[in-house]
Amino acid sequence: MIGIFDSGIGGLTVLKEVKRALPGYDLVYFGDTARLPYGNKSAELIRQYALEDAEFLLEQGAQIIVVACNSASAVALDFLQEKINVPIFGVIKPAVKEALQATKNGRIGVIGTRATVNSKVYEREIMSQLSESKEEAVDDLKIPAFMRQGKKAAGGSRKIEVFSQAAPLLVPLIEEGYAKKGETKRILKRYLLPLKMKQVDTLILGCTHYPLIKDIIQDKFRRAKLIDPALGVAQELKKFLQQNPELDRSLSKRGQEKFFVSDLTEHTEDIARLFLGRKVKLNKI
Amino acid sequence: MIGIFDSGIGGLTVLKEVKRALPGYDLVYFGDTARLPYGNKSAELIRQYALEDAEFLLEQGAQIIVVACNSASAVALDFLQEKINVPIFGVIKPAVKEALQATKNGRIGVIGTRATVNSKVYEREIMSQLSESKEEAVDDLKIPAFMRQGKKAAGGSRKIEVFSQAAPLLVPLIEEGYAKKGETKRILKRYLLPLKMKQVDTLILGCTHYPLIKDIIQDKFRRAKLIDPALGVAQELKKFLQQNPELDRSLSKRGQEKFFVSDLTEHTEDIARLFLGRKVKLNKI
Repeated sequence: MIGIFDSGIGGLTVLKEVKRALPGYDLVYFGDTARLPYGNKSAELIRQYALEDAEFLLEQGAQIIVVACNSASAVALDFLQEKINVPIFGVIKPAVKEALQATKNGRIGVIGTRATVNSKVYEREIMSQLSESKEEAVDDLKIPAFMRQGKKAAGGSRKIEVFSQAAPLLVPLIEEGYAKKGETKRILKRYLLPLKMKQVDTLILGCTHYPLIKDIIQDKFRRAKLIDPALGVAQELKKFLQQNPELDRSLSKRGQEKFFVSDLTEHTEDIARLFLGRKVKLNKI
Repeated sequence: MIGIFDSGIGGLTVLKEVKRALPGYDLVYFGDTARLPYGNKSAELIRQYALEDAEFLLEQGAQIIVVACNSASAVALDFLQEKINVPIFGVIKPAVKEALQATKNGRIGVIGTRATVNSKVYEREIMSQLSESKEEAVDDLKIPAFMRQGKKAAGGSRKIEVFSQAAPLLVPLIEEGYAKKGETKRILKRYLLPLKMKQVDTLILGCTHYPLIKDIIQDKFRRAKLIDPALGVAQELKKFLQQNPELDRSLSKRGQEKFFVSDLTEHTEDIARLFLGRKVKLNKI
């Protein structure tokens, strides 16, 4: 079956999109609620946690793993791909692909946790996708010099700039049910202001929680095209299975889903309902 | 030496008060930054984490342990006292003692994390101290019925009511440097309103972070006497050492302090500076 993990409950937004793209496929979800959040922890520690999470999903029978957590996708994806012997999908790559297609002025914004933003993973991935793309030739990457070194893409005329903004208060505000309150709007405005000033026209929602306040973000930043990585990773997974029919056939499709968490409180269940829009049984491991 | 642990960096407010009460005593601090926060996790898990934290401090040579974390003091203190063979101090008991002395109208408020508030530890401790106190006779405890059962204290005329309010957004707001911003004041106002309506005259700051916004809390709740548990636990510890001169003599007093954390990011160091008002070397274990 398909395994999905996250630092907590937020990854259910990804599960929802995977279900929508691949209805009927059996899913197993793990939320590491005993150690959440990941977004303010070190890259090294996140890698260790992510590996343990992935190993748990393998034990549960996962044949494919989706890293729903942006922070873990940002700092642990390569590491997991080295250590784990099944296909692993992160949320960064498909989001970047979509952002590159969407932007008209070449100015892409990212909001995320501190770990995601500090990792500069979106900047790196954008550069990497631009370099790979021969159709979309590039002559100047306005990303930090240390990353550009020796990486200048060949020919063409496309210029991309990336502006990242850590938005660490959004997760607790959303989890506390403050999504629609004035305080959240004011804090969001602070986070978005520097991106607006940079005339970003495309904004990647670099954390599982943000799709829950998509409308509010859009309202505060009308001209930006919002990119929800959950949609992209679900589509990427679907395409991958179409290209790998053998693996696809081996996946069970009884529409079953199992939810595991490493810690369980009443509030965890409330948050799960907030994300999925329905009550599910969370099993404590 | 004296060991102090917390789920993270907030416990440094307790360390500060212990240093002030017992200048020159060697201190060892552990902040479990790899698994913070504790306040939204289950009681069972917090007990397990607290035991590991205490054991780490014992390995470092701690002869006394102070549980700086309110959530851990709330749900794990008895458990630690069973498992660990050195004197252990939590922040709840001294805070309650002070609150009972301070209140004039018998209406005590508590703000804390969800774990602390759900544990009802302040309510239980208040009842227990009232029952013990023969001078302060009690005829009616207006705490929830299930707790009152069979616990009605004998005689007297003192009536105490406790009103608890979870204030989970304050910690991230403080850690993000939002202490003085309007959003924090507005959110704080929401949290304090039910306590004001209950005519609370004494408010326990039931989380290590809150002393950092003590002035703002006081400003928003002028008539309340604020109780900072850090002060109480430092005084309790001092008194205990006066009563146990042998143990006191065995404690080293070279003014040394060591700080350990289970995860270290740049932001952790910033927060430590915010709490201590000076830069310290944090050692990652």
